[in-house]
Amino acid sequence: MNPNDERFNDWAHRRKEQLERLNATLLYPRIIAGDRAALAEAITLIESKQPKHRSEANALISLCLPHSGKAWRIGITGVPGVGKSTFIEAIGSMLLAQGHRLAVMAIDPSSSISGGSILGDKTRMESLSMKETVFIRPSASGSTLGGVAQHTRESIILCEAAGYDVIIIETVGVGQSETVVHSMVDFFLLLMLSGAGDELQGIKRGIMEMADGILITKADQGNEAAAKKALRTYENALHLLQPKESGWTPRVAAISSIENTSLHLPITWWELFFQTMSENGFLAFKRKQQELQCFEDSLKDQIALFMEQNEQIRAQQTVLRNKITQGMLSPYEASNQLVTLLLKHGTL
Amino acid sequence: MNPNDERFNDWAHRRKEQLERLNATLLYPRIIAGDRAALAEAITLIESKQPKHRSEANALISLCLPHSGKAWRIGITGVPGVGKSTFIEAIGSMLLAQGHRLAVMAIDPSSSISGGSILGDKTRMESLSMKETVFIRPSASGSTLGGVAQHTRESIILCEAAGYDVIIIETVGVGQSETVVHSMVDFFLLLMLSGAGDELQGIKRGIMEMADGILITKADQGNEAAAKKALRTYENALHLLQPKESGWTPRVAAISSIENTSLHLPITWWELFFQTMSENGFLAFKRKQQELQCFEDSLKDQIALFMEQNEQIRAQQTVLRNKITQGMLSPYEASNQLVTLLLKHGTL
Repeated sequence: MNPNDERFNDWAHRRKEQLERLNATLLYPRIIAGDRAALAEAITLIESKQPKHRSEANALISLCLPHSGKAWRIGITGVPGVGKSTFIEAIGSMLLAQGHRLAVMAIDPSSSISGGSILGDKTRMESLSMKETVFIRPSASGSTLGGVAQHTRESIILCEAAGYDVIIIETVGVGQSETVVHSMVDFFLLLMLSGAGDELQGIKRGIMEMADGILITKADQGNEAAAKKALRTYENALHLLQPKESGWTPRVAAISSIENTSLHLPITWWELFFQTMSENGFLAFKRKQQELQCFEDSLKDQIALFMEQNEQIRAQQTVLRNKITQGMLSPYEASNQLVTLLLKHGTL
Repeated sequence: MNPNDERFNDWAHRRKEQLERLNATLLYPRIIAGDRAALAEAITLIESKQPKHRSEANALISLCLPHSGKAWRIGITGVPGVGKSTFIEAIGSMLLAQGHRLAVMAIDPSSSISGGSILGDKTRMESLSMKETVFIRPSASGSTLGGVAQHTRESIILCEAAGYDVIIIETVGVGQSETVVHSMVDFFLLLMLSGAGDELQGIKRGIMEMADGILITKADQGNEAAAKKALRTYENALHLLQPKESGWTPRVAAISSIENTSLHLPITWWELFFQTMSENGFLAFKRKQQELQCFEDSLKDQIALFMEQNEQIRAQQTVLRNKITQGMLSPYEASNQLVTLLLKHGTL
């Protein structure tokens, strides 16, 4: 484009206006009013790497925090092909019919490599995305899972401030992403296929322990027997686990998202779960624990990031690693030297 | 004691001399000469919490490092009652008869609470402890497992510099201690009882994966059948595991420490293991990896320790945690504030 071109000037002007709108004071009232476009812009703001945007994002989060916390925060995981999108589309319609406002986001560990996949396909969740009371956001991008997690946690706050009362965070069952999702939701739902008798194979250790509910998907006509068998298997498997701290007994059901079979069940679970856990105080307790854990984790992440990005420290780290592998320095003495440098460095 | 008492003056004089001897320049030549008393004093020095002792300890480790690395570093774990002490006593005698010099240390996660148990009982390993070519040290004390690990790693260096060519680190199979022992040894030996058919029960996940060898203990007369059954079970279980990075195939044997049955087997494993792994370079590679990992872990430990011990940071941390739980501050903004304070603080 020629900078002297009138169309370019128009475009540049609009772009400038757009970027200027990305500030906390202008975005905050629009978010509180439930403006979907403002919410999308705000999430773009928190995902920005520019220092100026980061400080505006921090200010915006601080403004929105008192308006947050009222939604059901639901995590959904399952292997690719288990039918997460179809399920979210179906259950989403039921939730909307009941008067809920729904936000759907994703944590996709592959997105930083492949350029995004979960919720990124426009053909998925098509009917949902047309609704005014639905906000759908593809996986946040970020160079680290910690960064993606931060963006998603902050997005939850923004969505809640914008009046969305059901937040679904979707992830695929690979890597560490389920643990990250589990650490930011109230209710963790595991979607499983009814397989050929080997239902318990392929579940990563610990995933089952995190589940508050398990849904056997694709219990469509003709597949009822396999679904029933899987149902029994998971019910038995859940019985073997330790009782949950919350006192909640994990539920299992077989559903068909296409035929709408038993789709009301997870909603009844959520209604019961959130009523019970609000009354007994566990919900508030769990969220506080999650936030304090997030504080601890973020401390470690930020210190590690500082050390990675600081050239002097990185150079010294290489020198020390070489000395260690050459047997010239003990690892303890080396870390001692580096910590001394780190703590000195802060005021340079 | 009366300070005017002549005996007190005598005692005070000796004590003063003793403490003054705890310096690197005096200890180093005695350690290199293989002086067992100097080794014991040096380990007392590295376990001391006094800053002056710590800097002497660092100097001593630096002097000894070039003389270290030549021993077999062997980790031994198993539940209480499996017969670790009896086994070490029996195999120790065989090693000494072959001309080896043996150092035995322990990492006992319970020692900081109970005041020490492993190797602390004088009636255990009685015949071994009488030998000139054996150095036995009870579990290092320390307020954290990380601290105990540091003392033990440094003790390994000192023992090697003093000419001990087999170092055994013993631990009980509870908590995180096996992982810590595994991270500082070359060969990890798991001792197991032949139980009533439920041999695989009660093994913590991941322990089996760490083992380079498994010994079924107490395969005494009358117990051969159970021992044989256990042997098969473990051989099958090991086949199901991923091959080791080293290429080493974990071995299983049933032994009787009392009747000296098959006790030569672990020694033949070690001879083969250390010969193969030295030749193919894996031993040197693994030790470097362990030391670099130790450097990373120690960095985190030291930063965490600094933050714990620094009053200003601790106070601010409490303030921030309160703000987080009151919903006034996001965990990310809180950690941001604390990291800023931390990095400023280094030069105060």
